[in-house]
Amino acid sequence: MKVAILGTGAVGAALGARWAKAGHGVTFGSRQPQSEKVLQIVEKCGSAAKACSPAQAVANAEAILLAVPWSVARQTLSELGDLRGRPVIDCTNPLLPDLSGIELGHSTSAAEQIAAAAPSARVVKAFNTASVKVMNDPQFADHRAAMFYCGDDAAAKAVVQKLIVDIGFEPVDAGPLASARYLEPLAMLYIHLAFKQGWGSNCAFKVMKR
Amino acid sequence: MKVAILGTGAVGAALGARWAKAGHGVTFGSRQPQSEKVLQIVEKCGSAAKACSPAQAVANAEAILLAVPWSVARQTLSELGDLRGRPVIDCTNPLLPDLSGIELGHSTSAAEQIAAAAPSARVVKAFNTASVKVMNDPQFADHRAAMFYCGDDAAAKAVVQKLIVDIGFEPVDAGPLASARYLEPLAMLYIHLAFKQGWGSNCAFKVMKR
Repeated sequence: MKVAILGTGAVGAALGARWAKAGHGVTFGSRQPQSEKVLQIVEKCGSAAKACSPAQAVANAEAILLAVPWSVARQTLSELGDLRGRPVIDCTNPLLPDLSGIELGHSTSAAEQIAAAAPSARVVKAFNTASVKVMNDPQFADHRAAMFYCGDDAAAKAVVQKLIVDIGFEPVDAGPLASARYLEPLAMLYIHLAFKQGWGSNCAFKVMKR
Repeated sequence: MKVAILGTGAVGAALGARWAKAGHGVTFGSRQPQSEKVLQIVEKCGSAAKACSPAQAVANAEAILLAVPWSVARQTLSELGDLRGRPVIDCTNPLLPDLSGIELGHSTSAAEQIAAAAPSARVVKAFNTASVKVMNDPQFADHRAAMFYCGDDAAAKAVVQKLIVDIGFEPVDAGPLASARYLEPLAMLYIHLAFKQGWGSNCAFKVMKR
């Protein structure tokens, strides 16, 4: 699958490397595609990965990971023009600057705001409820970490489910995009457990069934 | 421990029976303590359990489970007068009548509203993120189901942690009472998974660590 990654922070770099290792074609979209930072990220993804402008990166992408900070997410997407119904994975969390909470919720969510800003995209919320450490290795002894995802377009969700499974997570379908109103507070619970309650970033959610 | 249970719905009945079996003294507070329904619930808790008025039930209680519907929770507590700093476990969820979402969130929570309505109580949010089936048996093969709890009073939280552990859950401290802003959406995620996404009510959350 051709995957475009917008954003060269820790999440974009980690997921890009994982997807490249799983055999997907990864292209980073960056305003500085030749910067040393971006070149180092691309190098870690192996010889098939590359970097170019955001517009070039998404041109032929079958899935687009939006891995920029929430504060610029809507602007980043809207500058790309018509996304022709392509899956956009929103992994942002609308964190307050001091991480004390989220900027919005309950009656809306970052995912829904992003979808409204880019109506030609098929937004799927995913990869917002686990740390980079867990993204790098979702296996916990005999259990896979859960990766919750939600969206309103079945085909886009199927693409994202495959990208979740391909890097070792257990996909958990949380329903329509409005369920991001639950998944974004869940990210806050994760952040709180990891950094305030002593769990550290090597922890993950799971849904058990019997 | 002397535990008062306000409410004789499925959650109150299940937790009462579990705590009674664990050796705690369980008293149900009800406006109809001699009704057939209440007598049947008491009988399932064994010979040490009893039922009386809400005011009598809480009189000597070391912990109070508030297991009435959210719509009457604040009224129920405020009618009890001075609760003298006793732990009140809030297991409500502020569900909309059609279960499509929660009535409030993000900048407040049911738990915080309840605490504001009963300033003499020490409110701890707990037992709102698992089904009655899971309360009856929190063991999933070699893993205990997680029970998240949060509150602003350390002594009250310690009491609730013991009540969580005593019936077989793994306690997960989610911090201050304001974390109910995360735990109540988590309950909605649980409800959505269980009843809309096919997981059923025999599923539970866990936080894995390595």
